[in-house]
Amino acid sequence: MKKRGVYLDNLPLEKAENILIKTLDENGFFSDKKYEMVDVRDALGRITAVPVFARISSPHYHAAAMDGIAVSAKDTYGADEKNPVRLKEGVHFHYVDTGDPIPSGCDTVIMIEEVHPVSEGEVEIIKSYSPWENVRGIGEDIVATELIVPENHRLRPQDLAAILSGGHTEIAVRRKPRVAVIPTGTELVMPGEDLKPGDIIESNSAMLAGMAKEWGAEACVLDKVIDDYEMIKNRLQEALKKADVVIINAGSSAGSEDYTSSIISELGTLLVHGVAIRPGKPVIMGIVEGKPVIGIPGYPVSAALTMKLFVKPLIYRMQDIPMPSAEKVNAVMSRRVVSHIGIEEFLRVKLGRIGD
Amino acid sequence: MKKRGVYLDNLPLEKAENILIKTLDENGFFSDKKYEMVDVRDALGRITAVPVFARISSPHYHAAAMDGIAVSAKDTYGADEKNPVRLKEGVHFHYVDTGDPIPSGCDTVIMIEEVHPVSEGEVEIIKSYSPWENVRGIGEDIVATELIVPENHRLRPQDLAAILSGGHTEIAVRRKPRVAVIPTGTELVMPGEDLKPGDIIESNSAMLAGMAKEWGAEACVLDKVIDDYEMIKNRLQEALKKADVVIINAGSSAGSEDYTSSIISELGTLLVHGVAIRPGKPVIMGIVEGKPVIGIPGYPVSAALTMKLFVKPLIYRMQDIPMPSAEKVNAVMSRRVVSHIGIEEFLRVKLGRIGD
Repeated sequence: MKKRGVYLDNLPLEKAENILIKTLDENGFFSDKKYEMVDVRDALGRITAVPVFARISSPHYHAAAMDGIAVSAKDTYGADEKNPVRLKEGVHFHYVDTGDPIPSGCDTVIMIEEVHPVSEGEVEIIKSYSPWENVRGIGEDIVATELIVPENHRLRPQDLAAILSGGHTEIAVRRKPRVAVIPTGTELVMPGEDLKPGDIIESNSAMLAGMAKEWGAEACVLDKVIDDYEMIKNRLQEALKKADVVIINAGSSAGSEDYTSSIISELGTLLVHGVAIRPGKPVIMGIVEGKPVIGIPGYPVSAALTMKLFVKPLIYRMQDIPMPSAEKVNAVMSRRVVSHIGIEEFLRVKLGRIGD
Repeated sequence: MKKRGVYLDNLPLEKAENILIKTLDENGFFSDKKYEMVDVRDALGRITAVPVFARISSPHYHAAAMDGIAVSAKDTYGADEKNPVRLKEGVHFHYVDTGDPIPSGCDTVIMIEEVHPVSEGEVEIIKSYSPWENVRGIGEDIVATELIVPENHRLRPQDLAAILSGGHTEIAVRRKPRVAVIPTGTELVMPGEDLKPGDIIESNSAMLAGMAKEWGAEACVLDKVIDDYEMIKNRLQEALKKADVVIINAGSSAGSEDYTSSIISELGTLLVHGVAIRPGKPVIMGIVEGKPVIGIPGYPVSAALTMKLFVKPLIYRMQDIPMPSAEKVNAVMSRRVVSHIGIEEFLRVKLGRIGD
């Protein structure tokens, strides 16, 4: 007869939620902010690790804001419909297109629609202009040294363009938290393999990795391991080499949670083994090599719930961005639900509106 | 003196918004739904191209729902605290863990907590049990042939696990719309290059590609082209080989929009050249080789606006998913804004709450 699982602990939810993050925080886990340099053009959706300041002004030269002719404003003074002023190309004016630099000696652009050609190389204007009309001066959009985006800012498409225009090609962004998922269980078979009674298709890891990715992490799934102490321990050590957070997804065998908790105790510190929630009671949390290791139950509904309760806040905290709060709705339950004393129960419900 | 741009058209916004999608629709552009097979584990966030039905039931065998002993319910009949029933391992019962198949001859699982060992290989129970207690029958979660996810469904983490458990390893998902962005303009220099007056850092394409990606497309940026008819035409033909939608981002030269519209006219059909909006007036839309080609103005604010107005609906329509509607807020403007008759104007504002 196998050794049967005993829950060492039956922590209230609130305590369990805090203990891992608090302990990691005390160990300086979150202050060791990892960043990486990426090409600005690949930085969509990434979080800035430092504020980004403009290196160059935009525009970086006095630029025509209109298609037309560049002139010196003083050459237009006195012009009106009765007294048009004639200007000579190359002497008094130069044709410019929007964005062109203002030629030296000029300070104003006259819109092409207000320019009346009279002969080859000669035009008339019937209005006088002030200096700097239709000119975008140096730094009109952004002045060198000005802030383009602050730290901890999720980069939007327009931010990328502004940062490139500000003279940057690379930018420091927060490294995405790296999550490794280890599927364990002798009963697991890979998707597509033949099934015998008792076999379980290894599908949880796709969900767990997908959740981590949706929260902003990079996630990888390691090869599955059978319920064997040494093999799980080796796989965990392999995972700790490449990941910041390791998820051990328990097999359905009663002993499998014990393996996870014992391995954490052997290699590091076991913090939680069992939380007073249903489903999800057998969740395990610990720290190995300074990194969080979380044992997530095998049953899919428990796995999803415990991942959300305990790993989601961790991944947001690692990114230093606020976790989006779940929407709350008041509703009437359609049947009586009996709950157990001392256990927080989570029920999935179908929500509908009936009448009002 | 260069040939100056003349707007061939000055379509009202609503008409311009419809004409491209309507013409593409009439040509069957949207009914040619492209899909691709992907590994289920890589399908997070993708849109299903067909409904997915379970190939196998889950569980695919009668499974223990508890750790305990599997028995035949009839062997427990009559048991109570005064008349405990003794059961022999291998004869009357077998130890099972959650998820184990129910051995033949058994139909019920008794929780380990209700099993009282009396001697090696012998236990007592003090309750009678009904058949199928603590047994998850074949197909309890999902029965083969049952729908797992419908068509046009954006795959969530839990969907991936359910589809894997349903016996699939690959799945048909909508191919992402492929968008190619062509930056044009003799004044463009690549990020990081030295700047002379009149040079513009090529930054728009990062914004335009980023926007397309945020809307669900795959986007690539082609090498920039100078303002030259034949070169832009060649680059467009290259883009049409790999993309479903081509964006030509105009240079700031007044002639550049003419190049785009003339090239579209030469190779296909020009639908729109100029829309009565500000900013964004010089937008161009046409169809070449059955694919939409859109000329987006060079000025960043115009580029962002026209991309949103004309390309966003197209990309959502190609994916057959509803476009999320922008939130509307009623607000009081802090200064008077004078608008031009016959032009729809778009202003970016800063929104704040003052008092109430």
